[in-house]
Amino acid sequence: MQTIFTIQTHGQGLYEITAQVSAWLHEAGADQGLLTLFIRHTSASLLIQENADPEVQSDLLHYFQRLVPPSTDASMSYLTHTYEGPDDMPAHIKAAMMPVSLTIPVGNGQMMLGRWQGIYVFEHRNAPHSRQIAAHLAV
Amino acid sequence: MQTIFTIQTHGQGLYEITAQVSAWLHEAGADQGLLTLFIRHTSASLLIQENADPEVQSDLLHYFQRLVPPSTDASMSYLTHTYEGPDDMPAHIKAAMMPVSLTIPVGNGQMMLGRWQGIYVFEHRNAPHSRQIAAHLAV
Amino acid sequence: MQTIFTIQTHGQGLYEITAQVSAWLHEAGADQGLLTLFIRHTSASLLIQENADPEVQSDLLHYFQRLVPPSTDASMSYLTHTYEGPDDMPAHIKAAMMPVSLTIPVGNGQMMLGRWQGIYVFEHRNAPHSRQIAAHLAV
Repeated sequence: MQTIFTIQTHGQGLYEITAQVSAWLHEAGADQGLLTLFIRHTSASLLIQENADPEVQSDLLHYFQRLVPPSTDASMSYLTHTYEGPDDMPAHIKAAMMPVSLTIPVGNGQMMLGRWQGIYVFEHRNAPHSRQIAAHLAV
Repeated sequence: MQTIFTIQTHGQGLYEITAQVSAWLHEAGADQGLLTLFIRHTSASLLIQENADPEVQSDLLHYFQRLVPPSTDASMSYLTHTYEGPDDMPAHIKAAMMPVSLTIPVGNGQMMLGRWQGIYVFEHRNAPHSRQIAAHLAV
Repeated sequence: MQTIFTIQTHGQGLYEITAQVSAWLHEAGADQGLLTLFIRHTSASLLIQENADPEVQSDLLHYFQRLVPPSTDASMSYLTHTYEGPDDMPAHIKAAMMPVSLTIPVGNGQMMLGRWQGIYVFEHRNAPHSRQIAAHLAV
């Protein structure tokens, strides 16, 4: 069983999609299986992270913004792919460091997530984007 | 076929689980299939790494400790999620950079690991933790 | 359905394998399914990245070379696993930060890749290597 989720983003940051994915899984009605999520982009990531304190999400954003500064930053002057904007090549680099696909076992009709785990799209671009996540449920 | 492995950790570092996973796979008795491992936590990772020289494991630990210093470090003063200890937010960041799930093809009744590949839990917290890894074998 | 792709590399950088994987998938003839790729090494990675501008690939290479310098670099003097060459331990570190496995949904007989996504082997070693990628197609 397959679907595509479309997520509208409006700037860098984490966008939670756990409820959407759970709802689709519930419709599918499978008791046991394997769920795969795959983001069809090279400047955004999928991430499983703590869903309790929103400060975790903003800290993650700020850490990666410092680790991979905009291409206008002096420390990034060696970058050559800069014509799509100062946030574009850093977005590709972050997309290399964080998951493009996630696989999550399903048991008792639910994803076997830990108590504090939520599923997020991590948008690495500044401009609004429409992001597609392909989902595949194998039973 | 599914199970949950529970691993006791006692501080930051890599804990090998290859033998445990192999033993379970052997019991399952499948000739061919796909094995998925999923760690149900946001401050520890799964990792496939060299299993020959233990210095690789300590070097990995030290590299990531330098790349993501404790939140008490001056360079990390922008972090806001600090009340769970100086090793907590760095643990979430490392968990974003390293796998939460691994998928490993199974052939001839064995994981198709390379000669030097072992499977590890990478614990990012200082205090002892009990870590759950959900395993799913699809045949 | 399983196979092993063998890729010859000649130094650090990205090597595209999208066409090879597509061709195998076409032979397999499955309409819908889940494709898993798994690299059987601890000093090279799998990566999905932009396939349009080759400068993205060289920028990725240069970013990670700076983030994880050779063990001969003063900033890396704490490394102990150095006898396999100055590029070896950095290769293991990069292999921890980038995917060892990728899972890609298949629909209408094709990988559900986004328009700009290509599949790459990211070689982290300087010397030529022969790299094996295990592929598993579940239908």
